[in-house]
Amino acid sequence: MLTNPRRARFHPKLSIFDAVQTPSEHRIQALSDGVFAIAMTLLVLELKLPEFPHSATSSQFADAIWSLWPKVGVFILSFIIAARAWELHRYVFNFVLNYDHTIIYLNMIYLMAVAFLPFTTSLVGEHSNLGLAVAIYSANFLMFAGTKLVIWSYATTHHRLVSPKLSAEVIGWLKKRLVFSCGVILSAILAALFYPQLGILVLVVYQLMMVVIPFFRKNVRAR
Amino acid sequence: MLTNPRRARFHPKLSIFDAVQTPSEHRIQALSDGVFAIAMTLLVLELKLPEFPHSATSSQFADAIWSLWPKVGVFILSFIIAARAWELHRYVFNFVLNYDHTIIYLNMIYLMAVAFLPFTTSLVGEHSNLGLAVAIYSANFLMFAGTKLVIWSYATTHHRLVSPKLSAEVIGWLKKRLVFSCGVILSAILAALFYPQLGILVLVVYQLMMVVIPFFRKNVRAR
Amino acid sequence: MLTNPRRARFHPKLSIFDAVQTPSEHRIQALSDGVFAIAMTLLVLELKLPEFPHSATSSQFADAIWSLWPKVGVFILSFIIAARAWELHRYVFNFVLNYDHTIIYLNMIYLMAVAFLPFTTSLVGEHSNLGLAVAIYSANFLMFAGTKLVIWSYATTHHRLVSPKLSAEVIGWLKKRLVFSCGVILSAILAALFYPQLGILVLVVYQLMMVVIPFFRKNVRAR
Amino acid sequence: MLTNPRRARFHPKLSIFDAVQTPSEHRIQALSDGVFAIAMTLLVLELKLPEFPHSATSSQFADAIWSLWPKVGVFILSFIIAARAWELHRYVFNFVLNYDHTIIYLNMIYLMAVAFLPFTTSLVGEHSNLGLAVAIYSANFLMFAGTKLVIWSYATTHHRLVSPKLSAEVIGWLKKRLVFSCGVILSAILAALFYPQLGILVLVVYQLMMVVIPFFRKNVRAR
Repeated sequence: MLTNPRRARFHPKLSIFDAVQTPSEHRIQALSDGVFAIAMTLLVLELKLPEFPHSATSSQFADAIWSLWPKVGVFILSFIIAARAWELHRYVFNFVLNYDHTIIYLNMIYLMAVAFLPFTTSLVGEHSNLGLAVAIYSANFLMFAGTKLVIWSYATTHHRLVSPKLSAEVIGWLKKRLVFSCGVILSAILAALFYPQLGILVLVVYQLMMVVIPFFRKNVRAR
Repeated sequence: MLTNPRRARFHPKLSIFDAVQTPSEHRIQALSDGVFAIAMTLLVLELKLPEFPHSATSSQFADAIWSLWPKVGVFILSFIIAARAWELHRYVFNFVLNYDHTIIYLNMIYLMAVAFLPFTTSLVGEHSNLGLAVAIYSANFLMFAGTKLVIWSYATTHHRLVSPKLSAEVIGWLKKRLVFSCGVILSAILAALFYPQLGILVLVVYQLMMVVIPFFRKNVRAR
Repeated sequence: MLTNPRRARFHPKLSIFDAVQTPSEHRIQALSDGVFAIAMTLLVLELKLPEFPHSATSSQFADAIWSLWPKVGVFILSFIIAARAWELHRYVFNFVLNYDHTIIYLNMIYLMAVAFLPFTTSLVGEHSNLGLAVAIYSANFLMFAGTKLVIWSYATTHHRLVSPKLSAEVIGWLKKRLVFSCGVILSAILAALFYPQLGILVLVVYQLMMVVIPFFRKNVRAR
Repeated sequence: MLTNPRRARFHPKLSIFDAVQTPSEHRIQALSDGVFAIAMTLLVLELKLPEFPHSATSSQFADAIWSLWPKVGVFILSFIIAARAWELHRYVFNFVLNYDHTIIYLNMIYLMAVAFLPFTTSLVGEHSNLGLAVAIYSANFLMFAGTKLVIWSYATTHHRLVSPKLSAEVIGWLKKRLVFSCGVILSAILAALFYPQLGILVLVVYQLMMVVIPFFRKNVRAR
């Protein structure tokens, strides 16, 4: 500005609707890791013993703990699904090298789904017998997988935001995973509307498959 | 100290009111990202079903979910505004290279506005029909835009804390955006005092414009 | 993809059950630090004065504060144990250089234990006289030490994920610590089932030993 | 281990009470920034309108908002004090280059004080007329300043953990600030026991002095 005062006036070329790219990608990851960490820790806030006197006997206390199992189960399921979501988020943003306005906001929609997780988990922890509760819970995970599929497709089409060296195998592998996830979760939603417990069972079995089977397969290095 | 014991006594030149510059700028960004992540995730704590028995029927549950829509709407609006605020915060602190006492505290005032967000969101989620609630909510966003305008002006005047190569276009572009935001939010506050819903409408339309229009414009690289 | 369109079809070699290694290890540490920071700060949410009128006298207030001591004590104990757990987590992941699917999920189980901490702390803060409450609380710490022992063994066996230069002394030193911890915590659980206070005493004495004794020993530099 | 199987047995030289130094100092900063960010954001959770019907009139709502001012005031004061504490924490850990067992645990005690802040803030937000509440609140800040003084003295004595080039001016300057803070806060505690409001006034005036005066002084670059 001082060196070239002629440029100090507002320049007409950049409108307020333009976005300016900046290279500080670590902040996107820091914000995302923060939202994941908080949502995963807030899940446990739902675990509360019902009120009862300090003079409670051991057996009253044991009953109260025992009655928490459905909530503990849902907590563990949500935690594992969030862990899987984070693992894929780490893949996606490890391969993305440039950040434009679009991917920042797609990621924000994704983080909104993460922030919703404690709420939908509490819904199904309280009312696991109601189809609508399980369907909303599953819809939260559909939002995870769907948004990530959009992000990945946007970033990799014509290698828009990823390294030109990223192989089609890795691009296709992640797409396949996400499409498969969307399909499974959609079927969980459908199942939940008729048999709520079945919807949960589909989610549990699918998560276990996706977490446990890779233990027995070799890890592939990308590049 | 050991090598020069004469200097071990308190030196009179540095008073306790002086500030010493240190170059660890990543900590400002880490603290800011942390506050953003927490505030954005805490927004969802407002979403709670009213108490009703575990033996609730599906239609009672559906009614309860349906009655949450105003809160969900405000949650989404706050989340998007926080996302936009974070995007601009990332711009500002990407260009700022030096950190003095003043900018650290201006940023603290800014983070205070971020920390207030879950509270003002809950006000308007509960009482969206009251002009004062909407006005306080809008004032929170005015605090976002206003503080950021002060930060940006302070940092860029005579290129005080930014690279001397930062172009006047980019400096002016961000100023224009922030001045425009302040104007729109001020008009939302005025509108809210007479027609609360109109105040919210102004905010919603403005946010949608600022998020959606840039999708269709090209991204400009700074430097 | 553009340079080699033949590879654009889904390649059969990578199945959705394969894991792809990516080198962004800082994100694992960021997520873990986030979960630790949140769990440690949420511990304090349990500290709440019982409801009483604003017109309370000083002595009523002093009584209420005084009655909080058991909770404050448990808060401090949990905070110190979390601090020790974080210190060891820092050791482990400082030495781990590669991240495969297995270690990511072992770490997730570990973080789940960290997220549980505010809940189990509140149990024992409310019901420190009940053996089951103290046993669950101790089991939370057993989950800390046990999972970390599995992580460390998995990572160091045949130097699978650590530097080939990491000495057997350091590997064995951390194993010894973790095995010793598991033993002490197991004995705390057993003690708690018969004498709840004794279980807590075992934990307190052990933590003090592990925190205080090293102050008086020299720090060893690894490599 | 494989290259030298003789070393695979547990080596007697490293006891479980020894600490091993690792160079990952960024994790200490990340954990600390996380705790600060969470504590600063949780402060606002105390701000809650009293329960009243959705059909409340504007003037009832305005009264409820107005009655929140004491809590808002304490929130702002706590936020500013936390901001100042963070600024000094950034100084300290910017200059510390090595991390041993002692400084890690001194920092943990410091973070415990940060985690306590939302609790002590809520005490004084509810009962600002009670000397004990204000004294506990002030004691929280004494724990900030006192622990930081111990950390700084430990790290800088004989340049134990700081660069040998760090000047005695900077070392003395930070010590002076911390000793001065301890003195002012001690006098606030004493004042609070007799005149609660006076204790708060001392804190407010002191914080304003320490934040505002440096705006008008030049920033000194360390090294």
